[in-house]
Amino acid sequence: MEIEVEKPLIFALIDQGEKNQLAERLETWLPAELAELCADLSTQEQALVFSLIDREQAYQTFELLDLNAQVLLLDALRNRQVQLILNDMSADNRTALLEQLDSEQLNKLLKLLTQKERRVALSLLGYPEDSIGRLMTPDYIAVNQDWTVREVLDYIRRVGEKSETLDVIYIVDDMGYLMDDINIGDILLADDDQPVKELLDGKFTSLLVTADEEVAVNAFSNTTRVAVPVTDAGGLLLGIITVDDVLDLAKKEDTEDIQKIGAVEALEDPYMDVGLGEMLRKRAPWLVVLFIGELFTASAMGFFENEIAKAVVLALFIPLIVSSGGNSGSQASTLIIRALALGEITIGDWWKIMRREIITGALLGLILGLLGFVRVGVWNVFTELYGQHWLPIGLTIGLSVAFVVLWGTVMGSMMPLLLKRLGADPATSSAPFIATLVDVTGLIIYFSIAALLLTGSLL
Amino acid sequence: MEIEVEKPLIFALIDQGEKNQLAERLETWLPAELAELCADLSTQEQALVFSLIDREQAYQTFELLDLNAQVLLLDALRNRQVQLILNDMSADNRTALLEQLDSEQLNKLLKLLTQKERRVALSLLGYPEDSIGRLMTPDYIAVNQDWTVREVLDYIRRVGEKSETLDVIYIVDDMGYLMDDINIGDILLADDDQPVKELLDGKFTSLLVTADEEVAVNAFSNTTRVAVPVTDAGGLLLGIITVDDVLDLAKKEDTEDIQKIGAVEALEDPYMDVGLGEMLRKRAPWLVVLFIGELFTASAMGFFENEIAKAVVLALFIPLIVSSGGNSGSQASTLIIRALALGEITIGDWWKIMRREIITGALLGLILGLLGFVRVGVWNVFTELYGQHWLPIGLTIGLSVAFVVLWGTVMGSMMPLLLKRLGADPATSSAPFIATLVDVTGLIIYFSIAALLLTGSLL
Repeated sequence: MEIEVEKPLIFALIDQGEKNQLAERLETWLPAELAELCADLSTQEQALVFSLIDREQAYQTFELLDLNAQVLLLDALRNRQVQLILNDMSADNRTALLEQLDSEQLNKLLKLLTQKERRVALSLLGYPEDSIGRLMTPDYIAVNQDWTVREVLDYIRRVGEKSETLDVIYIVDDMGYLMDDINIGDILLADDDQPVKELLDGKFTSLLVTADEEVAVNAFSNTTRVAVPVTDAGGLLLGIITVDDVLDLAKKEDTEDIQKIGAVEALEDPYMDVGLGEMLRKRAPWLVVLFIGELFTASAMGFFENEIAKAVVLALFIPLIVSSGGNSGSQASTLIIRALALGEITIGDWWKIMRREIITGALLGLILGLLGFVRVGVWNVFTELYGQHWLPIGLTIGLSVAFVVLWGTVMGSMMPLLLKRLGADPATSSAPFIATLVDVTGLIIYFSIAALLLTGSLL
Repeated sequence: MEIEVEKPLIFALIDQGEKNQLAERLETWLPAELAELCADLSTQEQALVFSLIDREQAYQTFELLDLNAQVLLLDALRNRQVQLILNDMSADNRTALLEQLDSEQLNKLLKLLTQKERRVALSLLGYPEDSIGRLMTPDYIAVNQDWTVREVLDYIRRVGEKSETLDVIYIVDDMGYLMDDINIGDILLADDDQPVKELLDGKFTSLLVTADEEVAVNAFSNTTRVAVPVTDAGGLLLGIITVDDVLDLAKKEDTEDIQKIGAVEALEDPYMDVGLGEMLRKRAPWLVVLFIGELFTASAMGFFENEIAKAVVLALFIPLIVSSGGNSGSQASTLIIRALALGEITIGDWWKIMRREIITGALLGLILGLLGFVRVGVWNVFTELYGQHWLPIGLTIGLSVAFVVLWGTVMGSMMPLLLKRLGADPATSSAPFIATLVDVTGLIIYFSIAALLLTGSLL
């Protein structure tokens, strides 16, 4: 694609209002290219582009725009164009757009839809947000099990253009209950007079319309189909979910998880499109919460002020001790958050996980604790910092690191499970959140061990 | 699916070696259900199950198993079964499996393939690892542009069963160069005697066979097709990439990023399947590196030992100051890592990003710095901790927090870009990594400000 080369020319033509030349140039552009162009244009300029491209380009390009850009563009386009685009759009993308609008805008747009499309839109909007029902499309091909292969093929010729996929055909009974899904290949290969009933093997996976949309991502990991049917609890076929929508969904969910792990509220727009005010609203609250949590470290250390005054050397190792706990906790929580999201573990495994993490944490603690001890021992050869008490100081550091790492690992692995058990998002137990939690307790562990080993010598 | 209910019965039948009853029960199971069953069975028991299910179930179930399980199972199955499964498997999944083997195993398996399948396997293995070439499948339908619709439909009937998708048909010239891709719907709707050439619009997106597989994920975000064609640099059609493979890939890449953000080397298997030894190998090195990094905090603080001895109150705020920098750094680096992965920003934007993050970091620092100052002021009313010097102490804390947060934010946002510039994976600049980096510099900022504001009073 050499659209980067063509862009400056297009910008110039837009500035000069050269509509005919523009229309000619844009004629061969792909929807993806047009969408990329629109990203660099004002809403008014986008509307101009949309008025010059053909109907098919228009709705396909529109579907590729951000939801925000779609909402803005709707106001700038002529009513007739809005009507064409809305009616041409796939039902699931249209539902995503309509969700973004307030009720007044929504009503205005619904009036532009044909009666049939309006019914579809309203029924999809009737399902809970983030449910399979919002994600599904009613544009699929369902045929009666009593039809012959010839009747099915004729039917596909008549209505197939609007279907989101022709790879899979859905077979229903007279009442519309799903009997099976079957590959188009099996139909094309069969004899023209054969009833499709004879092609069924009764093996299919279906999703419940009210289930959470997350379920869809996992369903597709376990199938080789490009679409999965959606039914109500009784088995009535309501729609299908196609894998391309699930891909977008999977990306969106992973982005949310990653941003939460980094202690940011999930951004709704690409990084560069988020304004300063919104960026602060997404970032400041978490930092403030963590800061208030960390204030307890100052309080906790207040209790040990006398010990620090007597043995200043203890203060030197504070960042080392607390960060060791924080790092091991971040590690464990990130692993568990991801394993939960991928369905590799469930809350029911908590005891198995705890056992694994206690062993892992103890060994990691041993390694780091030894390193800490050796560090004090080696430095002692070269400096006067620790003096005659280097051995109890080294032991204090080594043991504290070991216990803090064990503690951080166990806390980090259990916190996501606890949050999930409480109905919260496990990803909220972000690395910084775990680190803050472990910091306060880590200091208490450190100074307790110091009091135990150093009282009588340094303290 | 009530397979959880049936499982105990199946286990019992396996124990008793009741092959006939087993075969009867398993006949109606879906591949996804069989794969779930296999996860609970030993390799020998899995081989028994595979000997009882039909050919279609066998290869579809096999494709759903982990790569590790596949490798183990290959040894346990009879040669004839291995042959059937390998030949039936889709080419991309087979390539993924063959990649896992050492050269001796590989040669043994290649001999079991038909000549045609062997040629396909060898050619796919010839592309660089993680390239589009390894991911693509040669099982697609390509037709000559001079054919009529009738010829195309006849061709699909003959060879369509083996194609990974029938949604999209690829049109090539006499030499095999890609002319266009077109929806099956357009073919079904057209007149039987029409040449397909007349159906082309010349609009298609294709991928280069040597490009990195990451490109595929982004390509599908920008298309509504279920498959995208792959060509060489000259435009010769070599294969297609289907969206279901890209879904697995997207999940895998996100998992790697998330684990790196949490300072774990990417795990190759699900959490529960990773043994203790491997778990330590993936986790200990990063913790050790971070620990060694944190050792510099002790060294840095060694320089300020006198200051701490004179003003122990300074030590109390050390965890607060360093963690504020770490948290804001984690936030910024996570945002940038994700935006890079999604293609929302590029290295070229570094100056725009830096400007944004300096402003954001300054404002975040202002908020947290004020909080820190207020904390000291309020405590001063209730305790004797700060005495007459509460104001300079409060200013020291507030200013240090503000500067450390600004510093952490800028470092956190620039480090992923720097790593990417150096050809490393940006996700390596994990939250703990940034935190460690900021800890050392944060302490220096803190004690420098303290020296500036408190010399003459406390110091």
